[in-house]
Amino acid sequence: MEVQMENNSGFAASCRQRLCSALDWLRCTAVGFAGKLARIARDDPRRVAHSLKVGLALTLVSVLYYVTPLFRGFGVSTLWAVLTVVVVMEYTVGGTLSKGLNRAFATLVAGFIAVVAHLVANSCGEKGEPIVLSVFVFLLASAATFSRFIPEVKARYDYGVTIFILTFSLVAVSSYRVEELIRLAHQRFSTIVIGVFICLCTTIFIFPVWAGEDLHKLAAGNLDKLAEFLEGIESECFGENATGESLESKAFLHVYKSVLNSKATEDSLCNFAKWEPGHGKFSFRHPWSQYQKLGTLCRQCASSMEALASYVITLTKSQYPEANPELCLKVRTACGEMSLHSAKALRELSSAIRTMTIPSPTNNHMSAAIKAAKGLRNELSEDADLMQVMHVAVIASLLSELVTKIKKITESVDNLAQLACFKNPEKTQKDVAIDIKS
Amino acid sequence: MEVQMENNSGFAASCRQRLCSALDWLRCTAVGFAGKLARIARDDPRRVAHSLKVGLALTLVSVLYYVTPLFRGFGVSTLWAVLTVVVVMEYTVGGTLSKGLNRAFATLVAGFIAVVAHLVANSCGEKGEPIVLSVFVFLLASAATFSRFIPEVKARYDYGVTIFILTFSLVAVSSYRVEELIRLAHQRFSTIVIGVFICLCTTIFIFPVWAGEDLHKLAAGNLDKLAEFLEGIESECFGENATGESLESKAFLHVYKSVLNSKATEDSLCNFAKWEPGHGKFSFRHPWSQYQKLGTLCRQCASSMEALASYVITLTKSQYPEANPELCLKVRTACGEMSLHSAKALRELSSAIRTMTIPSPTNNHMSAAIKAAKGLRNELSEDADLMQVMHVAVIASLLSELVTKIKKITESVDNLAQLACFKNPEKTQKDVAIDIKS
Repeated sequence: MEVQMENNSGFAASCRQRLCSALDWLRCTAVGFAGKLARIARDDPRRVAHSLKVGLALTLVSVLYYVTPLFRGFGVSTLWAVLTVVVVMEYTVGGTLSKGLNRAFATLVAGFIAVVAHLVANSCGEKGEPIVLSVFVFLLASAATFSRFIPEVKARYDYGVTIFILTFSLVAVSSYRVEELIRLAHQRFSTIVIGVFICLCTTIFIFPVWAGEDLHKLAAGNLDKLAEFLEGIESECFGENATGESLESKAFLHVYKSVLNSKATEDSLCNFAKWEPGHGKFSFRHPWSQYQKLGTLCRQCASSMEALASYVITLTKSQYPEANPELCLKVRTACGEMSLHSAKALRELSSAIRTMTIPSPTNNHMSAAIKAAKGLRNELSEDADLMQVMHVAVIASLLSELVTKIKKITESVDNLAQLACFKNPEKTQKDVAIDIKS
Repeated sequence: MEVQMENNSGFAASCRQRLCSALDWLRCTAVGFAGKLARIARDDPRRVAHSLKVGLALTLVSVLYYVTPLFRGFGVSTLWAVLTVVVVMEYTVGGTLSKGLNRAFATLVAGFIAVVAHLVANSCGEKGEPIVLSVFVFLLASAATFSRFIPEVKARYDYGVTIFILTFSLVAVSSYRVEELIRLAHQRFSTIVIGVFICLCTTIFIFPVWAGEDLHKLAAGNLDKLAEFLEGIESECFGENATGESLESKAFLHVYKSVLNSKATEDSLCNFAKWEPGHGKFSFRHPWSQYQKLGTLCRQCASSMEALASYVITLTKSQYPEANPELCLKVRTACGEMSLHSAKALRELSSAIRTMTIPSPTNNHMSAAIKAAKGLRNELSEDADLMQVMHVAVIASLLSELVTKIKKITESVDNLAQLACFKNPEKTQKDVAIDIKS
């Protein structure tokens, strides 16, 4: 009896303990999640504004439905305005404009073609009508879908083509049963225009987020990141205060990585920026694609920095050579100058972009950096032998660096083979032979 | 009179000429466009199949509407099936599955919450109902929109959240005027499920395009491209038949570029592949994210190749040093071995991925490449002075390469400043001073 009670109280205690730990886990998860949300909001408060804007636009459009006189005008088509708002509202003005214009224009064109298709099908008699309509839908949907594989269409009009197929199918198919097709198409188009209009008003007039401005800031920010890397290199490796301690953990050695991955963001911002009207310091015909070219160059620069970073880390480990102090001092000074002046040139460019002023044509820092590079080359070319050995040495070093990277690839493939249970090639050849022998 | 006639005939001739040239231009454009379409189709015939599949699915779903007994069951809601097919059909099975499941599940959840919201609002009296509904729509739409900024939600459930907002708003708003809300919601959900079902059947059973398979092939293809670069380097620079002519135009020197830009494709394929059921050689729980890790390593390798490429081009221009032939031969041989064996190791890995067999644990080529790299390092470390000078030399070379790249960035920003009409900073400081003086 006592044992039973003890068991019972033990069981109750363990239950309570489990419940407590489960509650604790729940509390921790909730707190963690709330912290994450707060961080997302703090990183860019415009996100909160955007969320509220979507809520506002939807509430505004639903008023159309609640107010009886407005509802009588549009009928059930009002729901298309709601649908439009949900689908068209994007984070940036350019995104909303691109989707909204694509939607309105595609609906207009597709509706027109669908009405023509309906008239043609109608003249084919009662039995022929659904067949002719089906053929039309099949052909147009296939052709339009194929057009989405054209890169230019994909980049700017992908959404428009979807809406084209959608509207054409909806109108063509429903024309079989609906009497007042023109009135229906007209109603639907006006509600879509109202939806787009509400979206545009909310995105443009309430805390607008311009894709063009974001793209402009991204370009300046990327230049700053490249400069930060060079400044770090200068002060930690070649400067007078260079400590010589391991650099592996330093933040500046990883700053170029986000530049390397900026292509996707840049492309989508550039695409949206092209739809935006003039705003702030930017005119409608601002050369947005120039930012993409600049971005490509920045990414090339960042990938050179990646190659450089792996050398710089090992540089401080092995320290400077002592055998040829004179040459080493020269090289070290030249390196310091190159990185310092390049960094300053980049900072000047980024501030020129930020303030939208012409960068000084005689960019002194740029010429100083080039001069340092040339000086070093001249210095070395006096010793022609050394110069040429160095060139081959660089290639050999880069190649042996590549070998290390390929070794990592090998490990990664091995890992994949293990996780994905790749089959064993031995079993089919050697092992079978051994099996037979034994 | 004669002059007039001559003028007239001259005018007619010029008109005819213009018409001819316009027609010619039109013909050329049409032929060019047709050629472009043919190329897109030839590059990947699955695109044509996909286009026809979309047409087929739409035709199938429109039958629901034409056939009277079926139409009676669903009524106007049939149009939702058409809408679903247009929006859900994607190129890959994974894409269609991801969108279809997101759509069906989000509709179910949102419909349920909307009915509850309707019941709450209904109990607030006739005047309170639209206000309570508006508040609900505002709150849920804002919260759901904000959730799209959470990276995990954005990656996998972005479309589901859109549909959640859409369905919730549509059902909640229309609940104000529609009597048989439950019946309507039920009808709409069933038509959406039918639409998703038709989409899935067409994408899975007719020439399916599996995102997982494409991702798998992309990984193997990227390894092959890296190998091609190294093979080119080996034969053109270090091999016995190295010609020493300029390499700038060689194709193999640019092959790594497509690897550098493969991240976006890889990420979207990986995301879709995770939705796919087991197919062919891939099980449902295939380690898809491992391909992303492999891809990151391949891109790092490609960016080292970019750094190497610029050296290799200038290498053949300046030829090999003649001053220290013994060392140069050693370095050259070691470089040849490193690139040859690395290339073979990569080919072995790519074929292991293609055939899904475990790569041999003692990858001979990999160890040969590592051995060559080590051998070179040992050889050089005998001459400690040279070894250390070389290390610094590599850094100096890379930095001076960086300076050249930053110069290009400067030119690009100058170009931007000119195209975007940046303002002149001089005018505000120096020039004004000069103006005053003069």
